[in-house]
Amino acid sequence: MKDCVFCRIIAGEIPAAKLIETDVVLSFLDIAPVNPGHCLVVPKRHVATLLELSQDELNICIFTVQRLAGAAARATGAVGFNVLQNNGRCAGQIVPHVHFHIIPRSPDDGFKFGWREGSYAEGELEEVQRGIRKLL
Amino acid sequence: MKDCVFCRIIAGEIPAAKLIETDVVLSFLDIAPVNPGHCLVVPKRHVATLLELSQDELNICIFTVQRLAGAAARATGAVGFNVLQNNGRCAGQIVPHVHFHIIPRSPDDGFKFGWREGSYAEGELEEVQRGIRKLL
Repeated sequence: MKDCVFCRIIAGEIPAAKLIETDVVLSFLDIAPVNPGHCLVVPKRHVATLLELSQDELNICIFTVQRLAGAAARATGAVGFNVLQNNGRCAGQIVPHVHFHIIPRSPDDGFKFGWREGSYAEGELEEVQRGIRKLL
Repeated sequence: MKDCVFCRIIAGEIPAAKLIETDVVLSFLDIAPVNPGHCLVVPKRHVATLLELSQDELNICIFTVQRLAGAAARATGAVGFNVLQNNGRCAGQIVPHVHFHIIPRSPDDGFKFGWREGSYAEGELEEVQRGIRKLL
């Protein structure tokens, strides 16, 4: 897609520090990393969200994430990592071309994901459960 | 594993609001949700991190995540979602049994992941790239 920065990286129009490239996916270093070694796995076909990936694309993406995560962590001296995949602007997705973040983590890296622990009112959990199951 | 809360849920010893169950994975609602519909996808075999999953387990997990994410978002009126998968205590992993969070998101949900945009010193990006590629 013409205006998509990831499509332009895939097409070679914008440079990137590439890591793994196959017919289906490209992975490269994020240039504004949360931590050193923060990288992205991107399917070459332009689709916006995880929901639009074929089963083959899904499999190849997650296999590439696994393969890369261990290497990115070890290469940067990290002892853990996050995989984060945002879908939709409200979920923090900036580039509307589906991508997986791999973020190497260390105890002293000073980074914290925001988190909150909500709760369900009485009966609400079961209602949400029924609502989801109906759509599966 | 005896002391693992997810293994105990899988074994039926602790109740959970189950969503999808196969021979390989179980998914259920998180009882302390970031947002309503926040659910977890967990392989039945106890391993700590993504790195230890077999290719089959990986494929089934990510397919279950995809299948569930759309339903969880629609059932709760969300328009986006995050998939988050933490590996290691320093990465925010509380239960040391690999799991994928699916978090439905809406523009007005008041939740923000922390984020920061770092940068590389001159030559550092290429050095990190070489370091990772050497380990692939």
